[in-house]
Amino acid sequence: MKLKPLYDRVVVKKIELETATPGGIILPDSAKEESQFAEVVAVGEGKLLNNGQIVPLKVKEGQKVLISKYAGSDVEINGEEYTILKEEDILAIVED
Amino acid sequence: MKLKPLYDRVVVKKIELETATPGGIILPDSAKEESQFAEVVAVGEGKLLNNGQIVPLKVKEGQKVLISKYAGSDVEINGEEYTILKEEDILAIVED
Amino acid sequence: MKLKPLYDRVVVKKIELETATPGGIILPDSAKEESQFAEVVAVGEGKLLNNGQIVPLKVKEGQKVLISKYAGSDVEINGEEYTILKEEDILAIVED
Amino acid sequence: MKLKPLYDRVVVKKIELETATPGGIILPDSAKEESQFAEVVAVGEGKLLNNGQIVPLKVKEGQKVLISKYAGSDVEINGEEYTILKEEDILAIVED
Amino acid sequence: MKLKPLYDRVVVKKIELETATPGGIILPDSAKEESQFAEVVAVGEGKLLNNGQIVPLKVKEGQKVLISKYAGSDVEINGEEYTILKEEDILAIVED
Amino acid sequence: MKLKPLYDRVVVKKIELETATPGGIILPDSAKEESQFAEVVAVGEGKLLNNGQIVPLKVKEGQKVLISKYAGSDVEINGEEYTILKEEDILAIVED
Amino acid sequence: MKLKPLYDRVVVKKIELETATPGGIILPDSAKEESQFAEVVAVGEGKLLNNGQIVPLKVKEGQKVLISKYAGSDVEINGEEYTILKEEDILAIVED
Repeated sequence: MKLKPLYDRVVVKKIELETATPGGIILPDSAKEESQFAEVVAVGEGKLLNNGQIVPLKVKEGQKVLISKYAGSDVEINGEEYTILKEEDILAIVED
Repeated sequence: MKLKPLYDRVVVKKIELETATPGGIILPDSAKEESQFAEVVAVGEGKLLNNGQIVPLKVKEGQKVLISKYAGSDVEINGEEYTILKEEDILAIVED
Repeated sequence: MKLKPLYDRVVVKKIELETATPGGIILPDSAKEESQFAEVVAVGEGKLLNNGQIVPLKVKEGQKVLISKYAGSDVEINGEEYTILKEEDILAIVED
Repeated sequence: MKLKPLYDRVVVKKIELETATPGGIILPDSAKEESQFAEVVAVGEGKLLNNGQIVPLKVKEGQKVLISKYAGSDVEINGEEYTILKEEDILAIVED
Repeated sequence: MKLKPLYDRVVVKKIELETATPGGIILPDSAKEESQFAEVVAVGEGKLLNNGQIVPLKVKEGQKVLISKYAGSDVEINGEEYTILKEEDILAIVED
Repeated sequence: MKLKPLYDRVVVKKIELETATPGGIILPDSAKEESQFAEVVAVGEGKLLNNGQIVPLKVKEGQKVLISKYAGSDVEINGEEYTILKEEDILAIVED
Repeated sequence: MKLKPLYDRVVVKKIELETATPGGIILPDSAKEESQFAEVVAVGEGKLLNNGQIVPLKVKEGQKVLISKYAGSDVEINGEEYTILKEEDILAIVED
């Protein structure tokens, strides 16, 4: 079973991230109270504008992102928990 | 008696879903507090934009969807309970 | 005396509906807490868009509809009670 | 002294209405809690749209209308009380 | 010192009005709780629309108007008190 | 150090104003509770409209203005206090 | 690990600023209650308008800015704390 989000919605899976320093120490990256790391699992076809145009989303499947912590709705599929939110609630893409 | 929703409204019937794992164990899929599985029963003609254009909806009759739990209005027809909501309150299409 | 609603407003008369099953049992159709059956008595000329265009309404005089229960304003004309609401507060047309 | 309303505003005078039945009985027409009968005394030049266009109003001087009860502002001119409201707060034109 | 209002703002001076009846009796005109008579002292260049167009205002310097009582901001210049408000908070022009 | 406001923002310095009457008496001009005199220190490039157009501001550096008292954010630079607000929170230009 | 903000979002690092007077005295610059100095670390591709157009942002990486104090969401990456906010919550660019 698979979720195919509509329009500008995105399915993500919440994750924890950490960073290795050059000296080899592992620092936990910490999304503060208002934010949360996540991985993009599926993206909608695009945002429906007032003029009827569909604008494709910027985020891609597999990208790591930082999202607004309380944005979106949770769902459990095949024993895994996912969050569905609008792309505008994604704050940034996290690059290595 | 049949409901024909107007514009971007959709009639759905709330359902429960479960998934069979490869090993044969049945896991109940669980829409969390904010969401609910449903089957699309009827769809409106399309969303009326500010420029007067009607944009056809993406969801189709018979599709399984995940909806915002508290969206829409309930009605009972022929002894069956339905929910009428706007397409923007449908979070994702659920595919097998 | 007659009411002629303006723009996208519609005059309806609230009604109760029931359905006869094939086996002949009469089931009361039940609009739940948030909704209410009604019959369309008069419709406005159309919705005024931001670009000045008037878009004719979809509902027609005589149709049975399901409306948001608390939408609109009540008025009593010739001893009969009516409700005036906007077409966007009509959820669906009810067809036999 | 005379009031000339601006744009989509309308000056009305609140009234009570009644209807004579064919059998000659007089039934008081009753605007329920949310509504009120009134007579149009003066109308503005038209609604200013976002594109700068002025759209003439639908209601005319002398028409009887049903208005939202709490809409508009009251004023007393020459010992008579009037209400100034926007045309969108007029629910319907009342025709004989 | 002089105030030159910006865009769709208008400077007014609040006044009291009265009307002489044909029989010569003076009736105080009374703006009710929500409204207030005023005289236009200065008008802005026009309303800035979303498309960048400036639409000149309808009210002119010297006109008597009826305004929403609690609209606008007060200021005292040269010992005189004025109110600055948007033209959309002017309900009507008062003509003799 | 200098502040360069973005888009339709304006940097002002709050001031007190007074007016000399022809007879030579000095009257303090008094912005009432909701308003405040100020001098424009820097202006943004212009307002960004929905269509992507930038519309230059009307106010100029050095002008005296009347602003909404509680609008904007305060900042202290080089020991001097400034307020940054949007041009739409400037009520009027004050001319001598 | 690096944050790449989406659309009109900007990543900043909050800082304290001070100014040397000509006489050599160091004055702490003080963003008052509602504001906060920061340095721009990364900027999104541009603001998505209603017509589908992307408008590039005005602020650039490395600029010092004044932001609304409570705007945006905090995140900790590699042991450093950052804030992600929309460009419209940046009040001004701070130039030397």
